[in-house]
Amino acid sequence: MYYEITVSTPQKVAFVDITDKIEEVVKKSNIKNGVCFIFVPHTTAGIVINENYDPSVVRDILASYERMVPSNIPYTHAEGNAPAHIKSTIVGSNAFVFVRDGKLKFGTWQGIFLAEFDGPRYRKVWVSIIEDK
Amino acid sequence: MYYEITVSTPQKVAFVDITDKIEEVVKKSNIKNGVCFIFVPHTTAGIVINENYDPSVVRDILASYERMVPSNIPYTHAEGNAPAHIKSTIVGSNAFVFVRDGKLKFGTWQGIFLAEFDGPRYRKVWVSIIEDK
Amino acid sequence: MYYEITVSTPQKVAFVDITDKIEEVVKKSNIKNGVCFIFVPHTTAGIVINENYDPSVVRDILASYERMVPSNIPYTHAEGNAPAHIKSTIVGSNAFVFVRDGKLKFGTWQGIFLAEFDGPRYRKVWVSIIEDK
Repeated sequence: MYYEITVSTPQKVAFVDITDKIEEVVKKSNIKNGVCFIFVPHTTAGIVINENYDPSVVRDILASYERMVPSNIPYTHAEGNAPAHIKSTIVGSNAFVFVRDGKLKFGTWQGIFLAEFDGPRYRKVWVSIIEDK
Repeated sequence: MYYEITVSTPQKVAFVDITDKIEEVVKKSNIKNGVCFIFVPHTTAGIVINENYDPSVVRDILASYERMVPSNIPYTHAEGNAPAHIKSTIVGSNAFVFVRDGKLKFGTWQGIFLAEFDGPRYRKVWVSIIEDK
Repeated sequence: MYYEITVSTPQKVAFVDITDKIEEVVKKSNIKNGVCFIFVPHTTAGIVINENYDPSVVRDILASYERMVPSNIPYTHAEGNAPAHIKSTIVGSNAFVFVRDGKLKFGTWQGIFLAEFDGPRYRKVWVSIIEDK
């Protein structure tokens, strides 16, 4: 089963919680047990699974990435979004979550984020679910 | 096939080699060829595949993460474990390894680690193996 | 379906575009729709999906990794390639790409790189494709 969803990102750099959107896709698929694969077809965005409860966690994560990959130093890439490419490779463009009993199976505090590093804009997220028989 | 294993971590920050535990799961599954998916349901731990032979490698990796994400600077997250969340997103919460002839297929020096960033404690690792027919 | 490919890397640190090699594997597999899993059996190399169009992007990514994990500071690992191990854990040893209509499905600017951090040498890349029925 293969699906595409669209995500609107609010600013230059942000984590957008897409857990509910992915959960909807799982429901549509009617697959009870399997693995849900999530892929971002962009080179300045990524997928992160982490805490989606206390927003201070995401704030600290983004500040830390900015410290590791500062925006205010020179880069050779002419488009001005080199830090966004670099951060994307650190978090990665893909992740998977297990599906059990027709639902995504997470730890207590986990959610799925689209990691936007060069917004605001509309992003695609591709999803494929493979059944575990 | 879906399994859960428990891992005890020895201190605040550590890589715990879980290769043998995952290998046991593969054996139990009776799957000869496929992909073994490994997922940590925690937001302050991750999964890393790297050298499990010379312990100085892990020591250098952990020291380097500490340099990238220092513990001794202010973070907004009130629980005091912001660096653990950040490091978890850098290594990622999931990875896969191929299964061939009933065993995990690694390169010469590779093993699977649970990356603990906020221990010591008991952690869960979830494993699912999908057959490649 | 399981395949192995060999990649020659040109220098100490480099991203080598392996998109065409992986595409060939997908063609050989005759699988129309599924997920293509890519795994590097090395501990000083990784897999990165990012822009393979403007080479300045890769240049900036590699310079940024060097800033995060400097070569010119002391490490305990005696072989002198500790930074290569560390960088490998940051980008990860594995990734997946969807297969649709018999081809890898990418975003406009995406390609797959073998990330070499301790070359030049010959590297293996392992590929497995699971059908999505």
